[in-house]
Amino acid sequence: MNIVVIGGGPAGIGAAGAALGTDPSAKMNVFTEFEDAAYSPCGIPFVHGKEIDSFQRLFLATKEQYDAQGIKIHYETTVESIDTRGHSIHVRGRGKVPYDRLVIGTGWNYSDPGPDRRGLQGIYEVKNIRRAMEWDKYLDNVKEAVVVECGPIALEMVSALVHRGIKATVVDPGPWPMSNVVDPDIIEPITKDWATAGVTTMWGERVTAFGGEGTLAYVETTAGRVPAQLAIIGTRKTPNNALAKAAGVQLGSTGGIAVDAHMQTSVRDVFAGGDCIEIPHGVTDIPLQGLSGSHAYAQGKVAGINAAGGDRTYQPVYVPWGMLAGEWMIGGVSFGETIANAVGTSYVCGVAKGITRARYYPGVRPITVKLLADPKSRLLVGAQMVGGEGVKERADFLGVAMRTGITIDALATMENVYSPAIGALNEPIQMAAFETVKKMPR
Amino acid sequence: MNIVVIGGGPAGIGAAGAALGTDPSAKMNVFTEFEDAAYSPCGIPFVHGKEIDSFQRLFLATKEQYDAQGIKIHYETTVESIDTRGHSIHVRGRGKVPYDRLVIGTGWNYSDPGPDRRGLQGIYEVKNIRRAMEWDKYLDNVKEAVVVECGPIALEMVSALVHRGIKATVVDPGPWPMSNVVDPDIIEPITKDWATAGVTTMWGERVTAFGGEGTLAYVETTAGRVPAQLAIIGTRKTPNNALAKAAGVQLGSTGGIAVDAHMQTSVRDVFAGGDCIEIPHGVTDIPLQGLSGSHAYAQGKVAGINAAGGDRTYQPVYVPWGMLAGEWMIGGVSFGETIANAVGTSYVCGVAKGITRARYYPGVRPITVKLLADPKSRLLVGAQMVGGEGVKERADFLGVAMRTGITIDALATMENVYSPAIGALNEPIQMAAFETVKKMPR
Repeated sequence: MNIVVIGGGPAGIGAAGAALGTDPSAKMNVFTEFEDAAYSPCGIPFVHGKEIDSFQRLFLATKEQYDAQGIKIHYETTVESIDTRGHSIHVRGRGKVPYDRLVIGTGWNYSDPGPDRRGLQGIYEVKNIRRAMEWDKYLDNVKEAVVVECGPIALEMVSALVHRGIKATVVDPGPWPMSNVVDPDIIEPITKDWATAGVTTMWGERVTAFGGEGTLAYVETTAGRVPAQLAIIGTRKTPNNALAKAAGVQLGSTGGIAVDAHMQTSVRDVFAGGDCIEIPHGVTDIPLQGLSGSHAYAQGKVAGINAAGGDRTYQPVYVPWGMLAGEWMIGGVSFGETIANAVGTSYVCGVAKGITRARYYPGVRPITVKLLADPKSRLLVGAQMVGGEGVKERADFLGVAMRTGITIDALATMENVYSPAIGALNEPIQMAAFETVKKMPR
Repeated sequence: MNIVVIGGGPAGIGAAGAALGTDPSAKMNVFTEFEDAAYSPCGIPFVHGKEIDSFQRLFLATKEQYDAQGIKIHYETTVESIDTRGHSIHVRGRGKVPYDRLVIGTGWNYSDPGPDRRGLQGIYEVKNIRRAMEWDKYLDNVKEAVVVECGPIALEMVSALVHRGIKATVVDPGPWPMSNVVDPDIIEPITKDWATAGVTTMWGERVTAFGGEGTLAYVETTAGRVPAQLAIIGTRKTPNNALAKAAGVQLGSTGGIAVDAHMQTSVRDVFAGGDCIEIPHGVTDIPLQGLSGSHAYAQGKVAGINAAGGDRTYQPVYVPWGMLAGEWMIGGVSFGETIANAVGTSYVCGVAKGITRARYYPGVRPITVKLLADPKSRLLVGAQMVGGEGVKERADFLGVAMRTGITIDALATMENVYSPAIGALNEPIQMAAFETVKKMPR
């Protein structure tokens, strides 16, 4: 079996490894336009912020390790087209490369924020590690920066800018950061900390022009000019679908490649996974695009297993998510009130403010848990959290609770660990569930 | 409604508060033999270990706060008997006190380790906060201590002794610490740390005598004499059932008071909760006794609500548990391999060694997750963990997973949060579930 993978990110590398696990005799070629494969781009903001001391630490494996696994990775290689009828791809400078099975893992790009960049130096899309190494030096000489729309990576970059003593201004058309994901009460502790740290925020505003000669000197916004030597693009992810589209592979409503539960595309022998595809939301069936690296990795593995002749299905997603934002962790599952209202999902909502350890134990932090439950089925439809620790583990838990159909009543009567150094007498998930149950219609 | 509660621990205080929540007009009297109510005894080892700077911090509420809630607490008061036919209790120095409904929350005692204590100073049962304040001063002059059986509180006390530079020797008839709860592979990182810190351990041995004149000077063990100015009793919890037994309230096979799902005892209008009762295990139906403070609190609340005329049931327990042990957290749900083998439960076991954050992110710690699943039903029968963070949250999760009947297959395909600062690409619960599924019979 001759398997070709396009893309060296988590989906592509997940596919290659899982395909070889399924069929160890498979011939496995991975093509990536970049100098590296399978590093952790998610770590880049934390190197910029000096929490992590070196970009080298973000590499997950060496090139030799991939060779040893039997994965032949072709670096700095551009795939120009896919010939689905001829079962081949066309590689720049190399010509036709045949495949029996193809996995597309071409990932995502930042959506275009609009204004002409005029070739100015200082406009930064945080993504590629080699570019990040160069940008890190540039950051040393930046006094003022503008964040152009505040998606998750940009949110992490705000902390990095604060840590480096760079004056930050966040310009976003939404009413608060990540307003398409997170509720205002959940993000509030972060924006409060930003205000304390001197971050300027412009909500409901847009960047209209980048100014300067050769290097960025300022940005124009709907609320006036802001001096800046650096602009960080924090727009939403769009699927990198150009190759697939040109090859006639069917796209979905989000622009992501349409796949079935086997990660198979509309075209025979062509599979896809990661940020270039779309996948249905478990509650609403609305297709989602641009999830996390762990989703990309899991989807890639399913694509690779099936491409190699195995049989593995991928489930609709409930999207547990979480991230660090300064001193806080935010996260959740599915959606919060903002999106529930936007899509017209009916829900009852309970909120609890709890603590992560006994209130007298060093390191104790507050944590707020908000649960949304369907008043008819009494099942969870979403959750959001902000706290000082334990957000990721609770989000994972609630993700499984949603997928398996655990009722709000079961959560309201859950047992919990109490031990002063690691957990409080009352578990905030239980408390929030109890509040939700109290508000349920009889 | 005239409600009387015997006991001022989490069960008693939980009952009093919940009863008043159900019937705000109830007359509420709580009798406790101690000087205080509702402090956190679980915090005592950490004050001894200097992680917490003062015993004062362990108090959860002031006496005035209970008064303000309408809970009349009678401190340093001994209840001598219960007259279930006459609906009254007899209080020393006060005589008969009538009740409409009674809640028994008399808690637990350390089981007797055997040897005559001969009135020697230096033999310490860690439990009461006033005594702990006195013992804390005594600890300043202790050079050598023996732990007499290594239950959970004693395990925490070993860390406290190490922190205070006291030479510790652990003597336990079991093959490793807490061998009736935890598997050897889970406890191993802790005993390794103990060896590094100079703790002496004697497994499969017993203390046979306490020696000294007036003050403890040494203990005799089945493996020889150990010099010690302090002996910490770490035997298992036994239910403090004397009052109930004398009153003819039915006890179960563990010696704990038998209750139904409403926390009602065999006697009309008499309820009970906390460490003085027994409760069935969700998997095996075997009665359990001596759980955690959060169980006592939850049981007390159910007892109080029903005593006050409400209707709340308590479920069989799956017992998520967790604790800090030096630099490690250990925990789990239900039982591990040791107990599963002892009670003859059939299981398939998968173990995964994961990490708690991206491997390059500061503060990342290892975590081992072991899952046991029933080969027929594919449901979880237990879990054990040891790791540097996130053990309590995962134990809570797995407790709910057990109670609601989530299959090992659902856990093996769970989604997880990936964000370098708060979670790794692969969730160790998912990895352990995947390992378990691989070993399942076809």
